[in-house]
Amino acid sequence: MIQASLIKEMEGIVGKENVFTSEADRQSYSYDAAVIEHVIPGAVIRPTKTEQLGEVIKKLYDEGVPMSFRGSGTNLSGGTTVDSPDCVVVCTNALNKIIEVNANDLYVTAESGTITAKMAAACAAKGLFYPPDPGSMSVSTIGGNVNENSGGLRGLKYGTTKAYVMAMEFYGNNGELCKTGSRTVKCATGYDLAGLLIASEGTLACLSRITFKLVPPPKASKACVAYFPDMEHASQAVADIIASHVVPCTLEFLDHDSINYIEDFAKAGMDRSAGAMLLVEVDGHPAQVADEAAIVEKCLNANNPMAVLVPKNAAEKARLWEGRRVAIPALARCRPTLRLEDVTVCRSQIPAMIKGLQKLAKDNNVQLATFGHAGDGNLHPSILCDKRDKVEMERVERAAEGLFLLALELNGTLSGEHGIGTTKKKYMEKETSRGTIMWSRRMREAMDPKGLFNANKIVGVNTVHDSVC
Amino acid sequence: MIQASLIKEMEGIVGKENVFTSEADRQSYSYDAAVIEHVIPGAVIRPTKTEQLGEVIKKLYDEGVPMSFRGSGTNLSGGTTVDSPDCVVVCTNALNKIIEVNANDLYVTAESGTITAKMAAACAAKGLFYPPDPGSMSVSTIGGNVNENSGGLRGLKYGTTKAYVMAMEFYGNNGELCKTGSRTVKCATGYDLAGLLIASEGTLACLSRITFKLVPPPKASKACVAYFPDMEHASQAVADIIASHVVPCTLEFLDHDSINYIEDFAKAGMDRSAGAMLLVEVDGHPAQVADEAAIVEKCLNANNPMAVLVPKNAAEKARLWEGRRVAIPALARCRPTLRLEDVTVCRSQIPAMIKGLQKLAKDNNVQLATFGHAGDGNLHPSILCDKRDKVEMERVERAAEGLFLLALELNGTLSGEHGIGTTKKKYMEKETSRGTIMWSRRMREAMDPKGLFNANKIVGVNTVHDSVC
Repeated sequence: MIQASLIKEMEGIVGKENVFTSEADRQSYSYDAAVIEHVIPGAVIRPTKTEQLGEVIKKLYDEGVPMSFRGSGTNLSGGTTVDSPDCVVVCTNALNKIIEVNANDLYVTAESGTITAKMAAACAAKGLFYPPDPGSMSVSTIGGNVNENSGGLRGLKYGTTKAYVMAMEFYGNNGELCKTGSRTVKCATGYDLAGLLIASEGTLACLSRITFKLVPPPKASKACVAYFPDMEHASQAVADIIASHVVPCTLEFLDHDSINYIEDFAKAGMDRSAGAMLLVEVDGHPAQVADEAAIVEKCLNANNPMAVLVPKNAAEKARLWEGRRVAIPALARCRPTLRLEDVTVCRSQIPAMIKGLQKLAKDNNVQLATFGHAGDGNLHPSILCDKRDKVEMERVERAAEGLFLLALELNGTLSGEHGIGTTKKKYMEKETSRGTIMWSRRMREAMDPKGLFNANKIVGVNTVHDSVC
Repeated sequence: MIQASLIKEMEGIVGKENVFTSEADRQSYSYDAAVIEHVIPGAVIRPTKTEQLGEVIKKLYDEGVPMSFRGSGTNLSGGTTVDSPDCVVVCTNALNKIIEVNANDLYVTAESGTITAKMAAACAAKGLFYPPDPGSMSVSTIGGNVNENSGGLRGLKYGTTKAYVMAMEFYGNNGELCKTGSRTVKCATGYDLAGLLIASEGTLACLSRITFKLVPPPKASKACVAYFPDMEHASQAVADIIASHVVPCTLEFLDHDSINYIEDFAKAGMDRSAGAMLLVEVDGHPAQVADEAAIVEKCLNANNPMAVLVPKNAAEKARLWEGRRVAIPALARCRPTLRLEDVTVCRSQIPAMIKGLQKLAKDNNVQLATFGHAGDGNLHPSILCDKRDKVEMERVERAAEGLFLLALELNGTLSGEHGIGTTKKKYMEKETSRGTIMWSRRMREAMDPKGLFNANKIVGVNTVHDSVC
């Protein structure tokens, strides 16, 4: 537990109303969207000014208090949870000012606790486009997006959060303000510390302000959906689209079970009888959109579809797309526990990965639904289970291990966008090398010598063999 | 000097023919394209296999020998030079295999000493496009490009080298192989070590292999050039183009003096009487190209041009573009010394920056020509001088300081693409903060505890006040 004197000091910095110590409050900060054991933090501190953030970090660090930085806690790999009741959660969600949307120089600067969708809307209001659209964007913060390098439905053409970070301000363990990058399009001044901090899951520093690049919005777009009798044909259509040099902004897929769970939940108007479904959208100049849509339709029609349909109007399109966006809650309500993974392979390996997933589900007798960003090769195989059932969970663990190993066998990666957090770190050495983990750990220890920043995440103590720890 | 026993060990690793110790050989590795004092290294070692690279680094590091990693040595900020005759240059240019160009999954993997243009050509031969095109691409290596985050004429639309790095392999100070990133479009497995290593100027590790993203080549393009009576009108035309939401792939400018030095050198067919010249190219879908070219021409014509011309044929376009590419050698031959800078401002600040540069040249009585990537706000003010003339060099130093301070005053950055190296590090604190430099230095010391990797670069001992060193 946290000492009363420290709580007093925290109240002195951020105000009494921004220090939470009641059990009910602390309980709310004990979990994120990952399936792991909940630990209730000792206190929650919410700075309302960026300078307070530096003061809070310095004080906690000097006192040796472990801390976890948290925006909205929507991440899926345990990146914002704590592992001991001695931990303090430092919550950035009151640092939420949009500082500048600059239409001449195409950038936006906002505080790290700003809600992603609010920032995107402020940019849109000035005729500009912030492309990253993680599924959780109406709740998630930009600081969390950067810390997890969030993707989204448009990632294929527009890239993930990292493609938009121009500059950031952050506080390291000594509470001193650090700055990296620039509002300029190019910057080679000093180390690219933003490059290091993106996807670092709050293990190195806490972000206070971020400047993102904006782009002109596309002038036109065209969406279509296709239903297939099975995943094999759908995944071949994806491979054909990419091979024909069309890069859609969205190229998503759902398997039979995902479609049905979504229909139960959201009534999106999807065909429940289909073995698989693709949602495709191309955007850009109107003539390019027309050409690319024709190529996409040709690739879809060449792969034995049950139907290829263009949504009749914006509302119908929005309903289908929203159906895809709610895949996670739709699946989550069917069984007590949803184990959601995000293994990623090269696009040409999607058919092999899908085949392997089906075999893993059968061999281990687990309930598996798969959806995801087909255009990126970024799949979300999701195991529906009940974590109270120890026997079932052993099968789930075996299936999960199987899918990690399969992704690596196919030259893929453990995580496309959700991060390593606590759940995948024991497989990291297999994908990278012992040298990589030791190099990472040395870097991390330099930035957090006391091991207080989200200490057990990414390259924590279980990542490499004990002999090299 | 390097001990004979160590030279023998190096010969044992890389072969006698790849260890260079003669004065003539060592002299050739004493300089890069920056204007700084030359120091002749103690030896040059050239591994021909990536495993040798790890062995060489480990041995030298264990022995406490300072080293500098070098590709082709084309960088412009002293990033590859040595500062003591005890230093060894580790040259990567024999690690030059193109390992895989994958047309299905749109990536290329090559060893770090591969020449940029050769790799781009190998991709083009398979119908794919590697956009970064630094001026030195026919000579520079991809490892050097990554270490300096090289830009090029297409950087405005396509981004710099960093936008294309998917994965890399590298050796740290203990000679262990490290891997980061993936061949997959998305990867969130572990720290983004590539994000840290890009632009790190060889101060943290030595790259051995890099995987770059490729894109489908644009289907069409249209180029035009415009001549203006003065820089003010040209820079307003640039601001107008960006504000109209057109992102050309190339938007370059040359001032009157640059045009004339280039004409003397290359006879590119430019109008010597012009006060300024813009080179513009748009690319993409044919219909988009037609629309965007019309908008560009409108913006050019609205700013009092002397002429707006479309090159009659590919040869005429190539001659003009090649003229821009040879700006550096064209200027370099006019006086014994060329001090080339790359301060960068937001695009809306280009008119203010140009005005300030003209005043600085006049006030300090220096010969200044300016060209650069107008669309990025990335300018190359170049001072023609003679480093043997101490009095002139004092004026040059004052002008250079003035232009750094002016860029910062306009919210710009010290370096858009050439890096900090040795020449600009004393201004870094002013742009960032003391905390930033100390944080960077801690990170660096963790990766290079003996201070042997390009020790004095970026955040070397002169970067912050002595009191905090």
